[in-house]
Amino acid sequence: MLEELKEKVFQANLQLVKYGLVVLTWGNVSAIDEETNLVVIKPSGVPYDTMKASDMVVLDLDGNKVEGKLNPSSDTPTHLELYRKFNNIGGIVHTHSSWACAWAQAGCDIPAYGTTHADFANGAIPCARGLTEDEVNTEYEMNTGKVIVEEFERRGISSDECPAVLIHRHGPFTWGKDPFRAVENALILEEIAKMASRTQRVAQFDKNSNIGIEQYLLDKHYQRKHGKNAYYGQK
Amino acid sequence: MLEELKEKVFQANLQLVKYGLVVLTWGNVSAIDEETNLVVIKPSGVPYDTMKASDMVVLDLDGNKVEGKLNPSSDTPTHLELYRKFNNIGGIVHTHSSWACAWAQAGCDIPAYGTTHADFANGAIPCARGLTEDEVNTEYEMNTGKVIVEEFERRGISSDECPAVLIHRHGPFTWGKDPFRAVENALILEEIAKMASRTQRVAQFDKNSNIGIEQYLLDKHYQRKHGKNAYYGQK
Amino acid sequence: MLEELKEKVFQANLQLVKYGLVVLTWGNVSAIDEETNLVVIKPSGVPYDTMKASDMVVLDLDGNKVEGKLNPSSDTPTHLELYRKFNNIGGIVHTHSSWACAWAQAGCDIPAYGTTHADFANGAIPCARGLTEDEVNTEYEMNTGKVIVEEFERRGISSDECPAVLIHRHGPFTWGKDPFRAVENALILEEIAKMASRTQRVAQFDKNSNIGIEQYLLDKHYQRKHGKNAYYGQK
Amino acid sequence: MLEELKEKVFQANLQLVKYGLVVLTWGNVSAIDEETNLVVIKPSGVPYDTMKASDMVVLDLDGNKVEGKLNPSSDTPTHLELYRKFNNIGGIVHTHSSWACAWAQAGCDIPAYGTTHADFANGAIPCARGLTEDEVNTEYEMNTGKVIVEEFERRGISSDECPAVLIHRHGPFTWGKDPFRAVENALILEEIAKMASRTQRVAQFDKNSNIGIEQYLLDKHYQRKHGKNAYYGQK
Repeated sequence: MLEELKEKVFQANLQLVKYGLVVLTWGNVSAIDEETNLVVIKPSGVPYDTMKASDMVVLDLDGNKVEGKLNPSSDTPTHLELYRKFNNIGGIVHTHSSWACAWAQAGCDIPAYGTTHADFANGAIPCARGLTEDEVNTEYEMNTGKVIVEEFERRGISSDECPAVLIHRHGPFTWGKDPFRAVENALILEEIAKMASRTQRVAQFDKNSNIGIEQYLLDKHYQRKHGKNAYYGQK
Repeated sequence: MLEELKEKVFQANLQLVKYGLVVLTWGNVSAIDEETNLVVIKPSGVPYDTMKASDMVVLDLDGNKVEGKLNPSSDTPTHLELYRKFNNIGGIVHTHSSWACAWAQAGCDIPAYGTTHADFANGAIPCARGLTEDEVNTEYEMNTGKVIVEEFERRGISSDECPAVLIHRHGPFTWGKDPFRAVENALILEEIAKMASRTQRVAQFDKNSNIGIEQYLLDKHYQRKHGKNAYYGQK
Repeated sequence: MLEELKEKVFQANLQLVKYGLVVLTWGNVSAIDEETNLVVIKPSGVPYDTMKASDMVVLDLDGNKVEGKLNPSSDTPTHLELYRKFNNIGGIVHTHSSWACAWAQAGCDIPAYGTTHADFANGAIPCARGLTEDEVNTEYEMNTGKVIVEEFERRGISSDECPAVLIHRHGPFTWGKDPFRAVENALILEEIAKMASRTQRVAQFDKNSNIGIEQYLLDKHYQRKHGKNAYYGQK
Repeated sequence: MLEELKEKVFQANLQLVKYGLVVLTWGNVSAIDEETNLVVIKPSGVPYDTMKASDMVVLDLDGNKVEGKLNPSSDTPTHLELYRKFNNIGGIVHTHSSWACAWAQAGCDIPAYGTTHADFANGAIPCARGLTEDEVNTEYEMNTGKVIVEEFERRGISSDECPAVLIHRHGPFTWGKDPFRAVENALILEEIAKMASRTQRVAQFDKNSNIGIEQYLLDKHYQRKHGKNAYYGQK
């Protein structure tokens, strides 16, 4: 079942390797089928170079396995929680990419410092709080999803406005309209995480440096790419 | 029309990928035809691995599309402004390469710290001011070009003396006598941006460090490569 | 003899190159045969691109060469000491990978800052003390092994709980149930060493940053991957 | 003439590209023929991907061209000065590799922080003084060589003890018994320059860090690889 979507999820997982976002078996991509609400996800701990499209695992939104011989990614309950609560998302990615994790481990939002960021998200990339001991000890992975959703609600931002989040002491999740777009967003997140840290380092040495972005420039770039009258790219 | 130049612009765009200066669809290269004053530029948001030479868009210097089915790069008006105002340039490159953007986002000129820099430009790489709200909201991309030209005029330097600029909170533009030279300059800019930041970091830990370059050494290297009596390279 | 193990050790050595953990002839991998207690190790100073499986050297645990025309790695006595003292290890790796060496040269443990680390080790990666002049001048390489064992005993941790160590002013050793797992651990160590340094740098610029990991989160991730009830990966 | 040596110098130049030590046409390798004292060097500004072995230029030690249609590297007089004054060197490399240049631009010696360094050189890598205005304006490239030789004499170290130098505000030169060994040394220099900077950064965040190396450990590693009783590698 869902052979086409399995192939897409499989290919999207391989892109994580191609883009240098994962080592070993780290990272996972999932997608949701709009019609059936079934989720296709990478199996847990399977090496990318021997993985096949047929190894992808199919689950319903409650986490019941519908098809597949292998265990799904251990992060599956986080993916499911995001599919249940966030609208308009067709694919989700989790990685331990180095620069995004550095910001997550530091417990810091990634500030919008320029137009590269503004082309991606209309504000800082949120770093969600770490989980409490209770949240970790019971349903840890689902609670990770809940903390993400809580963070977006608390800040009053939607998953449309920002396709990425960091979890304190853990790492990034990104999403998109399909699994390939979610992978693209994981790549962009890593680029802006790296660029933001380098910006801070450069600024540190020059008293005349000036970091931060004006709201009008943030809006301009975000809207020219994602707004109603977007004019970036082709129709 | 201009099939040869389209092929060159296409190949120069692919070099951005080869040199690691762009991810996804970021970045663009253009060239101007000396005889007709027509500009050839990459289409907007088209992936590098499916792009063809025939996808290149041809415009006149007023921005009227002369040939091509696709939308030109959204940064096209910046390119056109530079072709209108800067003499002797045959190709222009815009990227979001990480180290150059770090300096741009910090709002800092890249200081000349050594001969690698002096082989490239006869002084610091200017970081132009950010655009005002009005400049962003009306004709943003053309105003980006105007701000670049203004910065060079204000400092009294010509586009011949320095083949690169940073825009505050945005990123770099580079140029050259043809699109390949403009790409080379984008690569060199990234190298010197990285090297300058690393130089500051090394210097930070040693009280006897001494950064900055004497004018005579800057002149020597710049002139031996770009001056009237240049003796670098072949005749 | 031990042709199969020699092939594995050879392949594991090549993985060091593939993973970017070594340059030139730096680094070495060994394995121990459970039945005979014979150790197979890379020869000293042989380039990876001309090395053959048949070049691997076989020694007993006292360091007597049992088979092989070439000299074994100069670090062989360190490997042998670890095989003699640490239980359950089937393979050992030594590299001079850049980030792990940076922590080793600074004489600092790598602190556990997040779940990437917790998936690997149940606490900081220890940096063992440097060797005394006497320890260096007599049986230097064996003493390096002794200092590692001493450090683990002093801290009350077992080689099962932490598959890696740093030696002050030298670099990392990692181990695993077989040579491939030892190489994987060398790769993970490099990743977490890099991520930890980047975390400190990001945290430096934000007064609200918060680094360090709660014991319950450390335990959770370590146990879900390595504990009795581990549920990461496949059965 | 010297066809074999030309081929070696050509191949050694290509290794600079393979090892990531140069971009574009930066960098150059030369070698000297022991019997004739003729020097073979890369031509100036020729792209690595079109360069042929027959493009190599042959000169005598006074700089007279003996064979070759192309101009030799503009840094040729530096190479010649080093061949005239340093004993036992068969090949020389100059690059603008990023980390080595960062130390050169900061005007700092690369301190010996660990055994990776000690395997390479028996002490800090010297950063030679910058050239005076007179030295730059007359015979600049030859004076660069003189300043290197002066620095080694002033410190009382021989070219055997340290196969590398930095020039303030410029970059590194390395040498070896043949051009391939000189390239290896350029690669190692870049690795230790990177590692030393990362070591300082890690040490900065931990008050208990302890950087620097004891003379006995420096000697041990240097001697086990380069001393009379060296036991690293094969006979």
